Amino acid sequence: MLKITVLVSGGGTNLQAIIDAIASGKITNTEIVKVISNVKNAYALERAKNNNISYAYISRKNFETIEDWEKALANEIDCCGTQLIVLAGFLSILPESFTTRYKNKIINVHPALIPSFCGPGFYGLHVHEAALKKGVKVSGATVHFVTEEVDGGPIIAQKAVDVLPGDTPETLQKRIMEQAEWIILPQAIDDIANNRL
Amino acid sequence: MLKITVLVSGGGTNLQAIIDAIASGKITNTEIVKVISNVKNAYALERAKNNNISYAYISRKNFETIEDWEKALANEIDCCGTQLIVLAGFLSILPESFTTRYKNKIINVHPALIPSFCGPGFYGLHVHEAALKKGVKVSGATVHFVTEEVDGGPIIAQKAVDVLPGDTPETLQKRIMEQAEWIILPQAIDDIANNRL
Repeated sequence: MLKITVLVSGGGTNLQAIIDAIASGKITNTEIVKVISNVKNAYALERAKNNNISYAYISRKNFETIEDWEKALANEIDCCGTQLIVLAGFLSILPESFTTRYKNKIINVHPALIPSFCGPGFYGLHVHEAALKKGVKVSGATVHFVTEEVDGGPIIAQKAVDVLPGDTPETLQKRIMEQAEWIILPQAIDDIANNRL
Repeated sequence: MLKITVLVSGGGTNLQAIIDAIASGKITNTEIVKVISNVKNAYALERAKNNNISYAYISRKNFETIEDWEKALANEIDCCGTQLIVLAGFLSILPESFTTRYKNKIINVHPALIPSFCGPGFYGLHVHEAALKKGVKVSGATVHFVTEEVDGGPIIAQKAVDVLPGDTPETLQKRIMEQAEWIILPQAIDDIANNRL
């Protein structure tokens, strides 16, 4: 069984997609051992609770130094035997020492077709605002390994989604979640768990 | 009837796609009044000849100054009442005075999903080499208006194409032509000819 820890910041719909995919057998040989949120009242923590998954709240702002924050994160991650860290709508940038420590063991889902609309500053709705401002007709999502370069690690999976006339950042975000993120993130986890990468 | 001049540099498969789409009625209210190549023996010129379309060879290297070259191009374009200039695999960068002269009257097809893999240096096989080097799983093509910024003008249409394991720049180029360029370029011309933009 691949033991995964899921890092979240918000509603946790990608976490829910992983939970559902494990329940339905779309992801096999995988167990979520922990959910960690950097936002105190993130609904993602409720989802963990509802599914009897161990969870923790660890925010940068509660630690004096980056090193202390990283140590707390690593403790939570390591204590339960985590083999893969999944960033699922985690809106904090991890320090380079963290990505080095867990080299090839962190994946992220980004709501655009990398290398479009990625890098520092491109997170959450900002990604979709930029895509609509550029006037693209196709966007999508990317699952990639996390390295010290923001959104720069090796690509695991991508899926295109049409941009439609009248789209707002919110409607585009929703469609990309439903038609891409919730599909390719579970697939990537299943591929890793079953050594298909 | 929208009168179009098609600028080419090579085999002219996008030109052929336009010719075929006019013949089959996929493009309506449109007439190709001229084909101009900047490469002397481009097969695209044979396609023009075979279809009784007026054609010309105009290369930068045969003119002393950029201004003379531009004047020769503009003469050929204007003499037959051109209303839209279509860059269909045209591998020369047009001077800013040309794009300003024909503002909103030039469209281009680029073999990637702009803003990925575009701008100076990204032409022909180089685009697909860059996409494969980055490891994207989805690429595609874009039709856009041409402005002074290379590949930077307003996007008209885009279509995604899967990158497959084992792809070379050549196989990816062929798939993107067949599954995207030859579809969205004729569609864009038909949309312009019938005032649907």
